[in-house]
Amino acid sequence: MADEESKDWILMVTAKSPTNIAVIKYWGKRDESLILPINDSISVTLDPDHLCTTTTVAVSPSFRSDRMWLNGKEISLAGGRYQNCLREIRSRASCFEDEKKGISIRKEDWENLHLHIASYNNFPTAAGLASSAAGFACLVFALGNLMCVKEDLGAISAIARQGSGSACRSLYGGFVKWNTGYDVSGRDSIAMQLASESHWDDLVIIIAVVSSRQKETSSTAGMRESVETSTLLQYRFKEVVPKRILQMEEAIRNKDFTTFARLTCADSNQFHAVCLDTCPPIFYMNDTSHRIINYMEKWNQLEGTPQVAYTFDAGPNAVLIARNRKTAEALLQRLLFYFPPPGAELTSYVLGDVSILHDAGLQEMKDVEALMPPPELKCQIPFKRHAGDVSYFICTKPGRGPMILNDKNQALLNPNTGIPQ
Amino acid sequence: MADEESKDWILMVTAKSPTNIAVIKYWGKRDESLILPINDSISVTLDPDHLCTTTTVAVSPSFRSDRMWLNGKEISLAGGRYQNCLREIRSRASCFEDEKKGISIRKEDWENLHLHIASYNNFPTAAGLASSAAGFACLVFALGNLMCVKEDLGAISAIARQGSGSACRSLYGGFVKWNTGYDVSGRDSIAMQLASESHWDDLVIIIAVVSSRQKETSSTAGMRESVETSTLLQYRFKEVVPKRILQMEEAIRNKDFTTFARLTCADSNQFHAVCLDTCPPIFYMNDTSHRIINYMEKWNQLEGTPQVAYTFDAGPNAVLIARNRKTAEALLQRLLFYFPPPGAELTSYVLGDVSILHDAGLQEMKDVEALMPPPELKCQIPFKRHAGDVSYFICTKPGRGPMILNDKNQALLNPNTGIPQ
Repeated sequence: MADEESKDWILMVTAKSPTNIAVIKYWGKRDESLILPINDSISVTLDPDHLCTTTTVAVSPSFRSDRMWLNGKEISLAGGRYQNCLREIRSRASCFEDEKKGISIRKEDWENLHLHIASYNNFPTAAGLASSAAGFACLVFALGNLMCVKEDLGAISAIARQGSGSACRSLYGGFVKWNTGYDVSGRDSIAMQLASESHWDDLVIIIAVVSSRQKETSSTAGMRESVETSTLLQYRFKEVVPKRILQMEEAIRNKDFTTFARLTCADSNQFHAVCLDTCPPIFYMNDTSHRIINYMEKWNQLEGTPQVAYTFDAGPNAVLIARNRKTAEALLQRLLFYFPPPGAELTSYVLGDVSILHDAGLQEMKDVEALMPPPELKCQIPFKRHAGDVSYFICTKPGRGPMILNDKNQALLNPNTGIPQ
Repeated sequence: MADEESKDWILMVTAKSPTNIAVIKYWGKRDESLILPINDSISVTLDPDHLCTTTTVAVSPSFRSDRMWLNGKEISLAGGRYQNCLREIRSRASCFEDEKKGISIRKEDWENLHLHIASYNNFPTAAGLASSAAGFACLVFALGNLMCVKEDLGAISAIARQGSGSACRSLYGGFVKWNTGYDVSGRDSIAMQLASESHWDDLVIIIAVVSSRQKETSSTAGMRESVETSTLLQYRFKEVVPKRILQMEEAIRNKDFTTFARLTCADSNQFHAVCLDTCPPIFYMNDTSHRIINYMEKWNQLEGTPQVAYTFDAGPNAVLIARNRKTAEALLQRLLFYFPPPGAELTSYVLGDVSILHDAGLQEMKDVEALMPPPELKCQIPFKRHAGDVSYFICTKPGRGPMILNDKNQALLNPNTGIPQ
């Protein structure tokens, strides 16, 4: 370790990680503490420009204990999930040397050096937008970099998995598969990239944030209860999912949107069906979620082939995947017709890649007010519009995996104190 | 047939039939035109004093065609379901003789005599309260009586089944099982009574009518789509339901409310799970239905053993089955706490056996306003109450099967004209 004089150094790394949305769902663990799933799952990584976690990790001989701040508020690191990630990463650390700054950390030093961690989500926590996935992916990715861990991303993903199962899928961009694996140690329960974000770059994703209240049943408790009580889940993971995984891999390989959409919608619905089959039943979708599904189904039916896929995680928010940019414009027009902004302005109602809004001819509120009912509504006119049922929309697309931010201005910890700035 | 002079006679029968609520659900047909189900189902017949169909059937040589009036409005009898019932009943008719009135009908005459039918539900049609079950049971029961059909109730139930599947279960009071049967003709797909209403007379039933809008997906279309697209339904009818049928029969035999409630809730939830697993998905329950389930689950959990079972058919209405009269009073207090009447009075808000209301100490609106939050709410106080989310409650109990009404004043057709009066 560095000598007494240089005790004040702080070594710091900042990373940014995406969230992801499963299109073949993970629901149910075969090992609770290692977080090993009962079935494979497949996800799309969302563009971190619009939805991401930023995490700064710092190490210093002056730190007295491991500490963490989430969205500016200090939280406990005592939980098993954090401890597992920290232990696994520390055990894989390598030596670090920076002669200019006079820092020298031997492999065995990492066990005794304390960490400060600051993490920030640019979207609501625990509202079904996979904040823990982005969070643990970012934590493990940043720590791996700080501690000079030499293992590949697959092994890193197995560590992130022990923080939050779906976090392992956020270690890659594009289209990602999480293999359930066979080994009881969990070392083959890792994520792998099926295709990068550039493979299928037509897709556009619009998220309808239906509610940002904290959800009632955590996904950890929910999936435990489903494994214990749902008879349908047994059939799902043994008989239904394995076939869907193969079909989904092929659909992604071939950029076959029709199959992709069919499987995505069916698997989302089946996941929520299993939640309902749980005792006591779990409801993540609400009337607004149901309404969005009905509108999308009607549109797809009118067009003959799917224009949009929908999927819902453990919350009421809809993730809508449009076939291409043109379709996304038509989708946004429909969404703003059905769910007009409750206030007088659009800028806080449609977030992310707002160029879609402009290309769809929706510059101002008067453009939204002038929207005509979509043709699939047919005889259901006059139609009741639902202002206020959606909090806001986020326009995004499939995106890249985690990255290190070299710009020191993006660090969340003060470089001199190691405390959030 | 009667001679020319007496051509003006009208022969008339009026019957009253109960509706029923399935506790092990029927969802899916193996034969669409004969209405043969893919699995056995079990139901509780509801007291016809509170929920029933009354039907008057009349025959006269002066009638020019078969005609029917439902709730005062003439409807077409051209549909296959009506035609199947009329054909099957006519083919089993016997001769009728009333010397005093000068009426003589030979067996073969029934084919040429036209019918007038008037039917009335004392509850909203097509809102998930099994109006077609009560309706077809009443129609077939009344016609069987009019036409002197000599077959037993089981054979009569197989005819009602061809009008509306669950109608066969309304031919008996108490607890009824509908056997899917084996024969391709459907003749063994009949209802049978498991126990009469007096076997387990502790039970009290409260129905929350959540919405009386016409439902979006008819159960006929819904179950067809589930059979065609839900992978979970396949598992349900082959593996899950047969075991539940045996357990439910035993629970009813032993008046074992704990098992009865567990199975009833689980099977309702699984039926709705299968609806969600259908493509496109079907939603019959809404946010209010979900809320009711959550309240009941919390209460049952607090008590340690179930106090109330819930079940939902193809609509948002909750059917709540309380363990006994005392529990029903506590249930009604809870329901009125969570869903207070939107107006200023109780008499149009709680219907049926209102003595429960009085025994629960709820005579006036001020008693409802004074209700304390139930103990299971604990820390969730202050609590948002949901006035207006329930249209009304009906208090009832398991009840008897169909009966003939001999009081001429209860006939729905004018005895001289054969037209609704």
